[in-house]
Amino acid sequence: MESARGGAPVDKAVDFANYFCTYSYLYHQKDMLSDRVRMDAYHSAVFKNKRHFQGKTVLDVGTGSGILAIWSAQAGAKKVYAVEATNMARHARSLASANGVSHIVEVIEGSIEDVSIPEKVDVIISEWMGYFLVRESMFDSVIYARDRWLKPSGLMYPSHARMWFAPIKTKLVEQKNQEYQKSLADWSYFAQELNEAYGVDMSTLTMPYHEEQKKYYLQTSLWSNLYPGQVIGDPVVVKEIDCSNATLQDIAAVKSRFSFTLSGSDRLCGFAGWFDVHFRGNASNPADKEVELTTSPSDTDTTHWGQQVFLLQPPLVIEDGDVVQGSIEITRSKDNHRLMDVKITHELRSSGEQFYPATVCNFFIE
Amino acid sequence: MESARGGAPVDKAVDFANYFCTYSYLYHQKDMLSDRVRMDAYHSAVFKNKRHFQGKTVLDVGTGSGILAIWSAQAGAKKVYAVEATNMARHARSLASANGVSHIVEVIEGSIEDVSIPEKVDVIISEWMGYFLVRESMFDSVIYARDRWLKPSGLMYPSHARMWFAPIKTKLVEQKNQEYQKSLADWSYFAQELNEAYGVDMSTLTMPYHEEQKKYYLQTSLWSNLYPGQVIGDPVVVKEIDCSNATLQDIAAVKSRFSFTLSGSDRLCGFAGWFDVHFRGNASNPADKEVELTTSPSDTDTTHWGQQVFLLQPPLVIEDGDVVQGSIEITRSKDNHRLMDVKITHELRSSGEQFYPATVCNFFIE
Repeated sequence: MESARGGAPVDKAVDFANYFCTYSYLYHQKDMLSDRVRMDAYHSAVFKNKRHFQGKTVLDVGTGSGILAIWSAQAGAKKVYAVEATNMARHARSLASANGVSHIVEVIEGSIEDVSIPEKVDVIISEWMGYFLVRESMFDSVIYARDRWLKPSGLMYPSHARMWFAPIKTKLVEQKNQEYQKSLADWSYFAQELNEAYGVDMSTLTMPYHEEQKKYYLQTSLWSNLYPGQVIGDPVVVKEIDCSNATLQDIAAVKSRFSFTLSGSDRLCGFAGWFDVHFRGNASNPADKEVELTTSPSDTDTTHWGQQVFLLQPPLVIEDGDVVQGSIEITRSKDNHRLMDVKITHELRSSGEQFYPATVCNFFIE
Repeated sequence: MESARGGAPVDKAVDFANYFCTYSYLYHQKDMLSDRVRMDAYHSAVFKNKRHFQGKTVLDVGTGSGILAIWSAQAGAKKVYAVEATNMARHARSLASANGVSHIVEVIEGSIEDVSIPEKVDVIISEWMGYFLVRESMFDSVIYARDRWLKPSGLMYPSHARMWFAPIKTKLVEQKNQEYQKSLADWSYFAQELNEAYGVDMSTLTMPYHEEQKKYYLQTSLWSNLYPGQVIGDPVVVKEIDCSNATLQDIAAVKSRFSFTLSGSDRLCGFAGWFDVHFRGNASNPADKEVELTTSPSDTDTTHWGQQVFLLQPPLVIEDGDVVQGSIEITRSKDNHRLMDVKITHELRSSGEQFYPATVCNFFIE
């Protein structure tokens, strides 16, 4: 066990089984490499700011198939250290070689906390973002890399990140409730059958079963690519991270208040969370061309991250101009530091005297 | 790390994350409790052989929701120790209590290798069988329990187990090949696009991708509930286990030759593996009523285990009376002792002079 990182203690072998293993499949790498929004943003960030790479040393944290390391080399880096925890490292090595940059890209297999880099670097590049930014807690490793291996005036790619939050309408609210209700009906039937056939009364497990199913169907955030029209109030930023100086403590928890003026006489079905990151260089060495990568609801530019949806059951009937206000608090799951517990408190203030009192809902980003 | 058990070394925390965790969900318990073939067999085994339980001490290895322990108590056991590694133990405890047997059933949370039972027992009952019997390697724990906690003349429930193997025809052979071919075409398109858009040549990863996909689509055994008509030759037993005296060494690997005379002029699409177990008591204390639990292909009595299917790509054209012979060898995966590597060697001897030479196919039970 390692010491706690703002959450559960970390057993490295368990963490590998639960988390890293996914990244050892080319199938999964292909999914990420097929995300054009993601690819375009990083590609532009590197090639429109070549000056930041030319003749410089670069560290790629979690290189995967090696794409960011190869681009860094192609943009003129003198040396790129590409660190990868899984045995995807062997593929990154062969890809660098096949693309003629094996003399520049040095792939190092190991977790960033364990490996040794021969020198401090000018740039750290990494694609560390999880669902709603924070899932996976991989930025922990980027902070570690920055504090250990980045030169004092070095650059972070990306340099900034933000978490966004907004009220939404979605048919998922009915779908999930129906699935939940069906699972309860299934249990009821099952328990009766079992009692009749085998003489065991299951009723004491009914409540625990309902709780388990409620967590699964209603309290676990859902991946969705929403249309912009499903967002029914101006999104707000609930967290900003300056990648150059954020600490573990800064990122381990998110706590923010919100107030949305709702548009349209419709239903408030829940909330959605997403993120953007920016490539701006730093104050003493700004980007020639600032680049943004956003995962916001979009008709055209969808990403593999999509948005995380937190449903309100039942949804609230609203009128145009109603205000929903409250707070969101995100902490790391006590069982797995890469997953999140989310507490959303909300109350509805209606122009037409209607009033729903403050309600607390607990969610899980699994 | 524990010492190796006929396979990979066992990191207990990783094993819990990969394996045991599934059993901590009531949803999964419900699936098993809804398997009427499974339930009927164990129920009959206990209640038609009450004499084996009346006034006796019983150990249930991996009690889950506690059903076998409760039945043992209802059948007249004096004391039942119900061991469960996951926190499903708390539900087993409340179920025993709600069914009025909490004074008999003592639920102990922990893995069988770690817990202490206050006395040696007369009967060990356990539902330890995985796909094709051996997946999960849970019988290891039953052997441990038997050698440590069963009285010399004690009874094993079940007492015997067999692994069956048979030639089959199935449309899965086309379906999986189409999925595989589609995944290769996807890659080809993806690699071209990526090269054009971002200037990185992915071709060096094409072969590794094909291998990864081949393993996934063609070499991983498939769960299926076959109809009896899909079995095109008399099934053979490839392994027999006497639960009263089998050793870890006996069960760690399976190696058997087979010879099937095929019926019907059709196609040999692969092979299927399944198991049965028997409840016979032992030589000095035989069952009053022997009970069998079989997971063989059936029109009516399907189980959640189904059969494991190993596909031949491409399938072989056969004529009635052709003979396929060869061998099957099952060993534990070097990465995970609960998963299996399967090597099937086969050759077709045709009455009509047609002859396919011996071919070796490697499969994985994941």
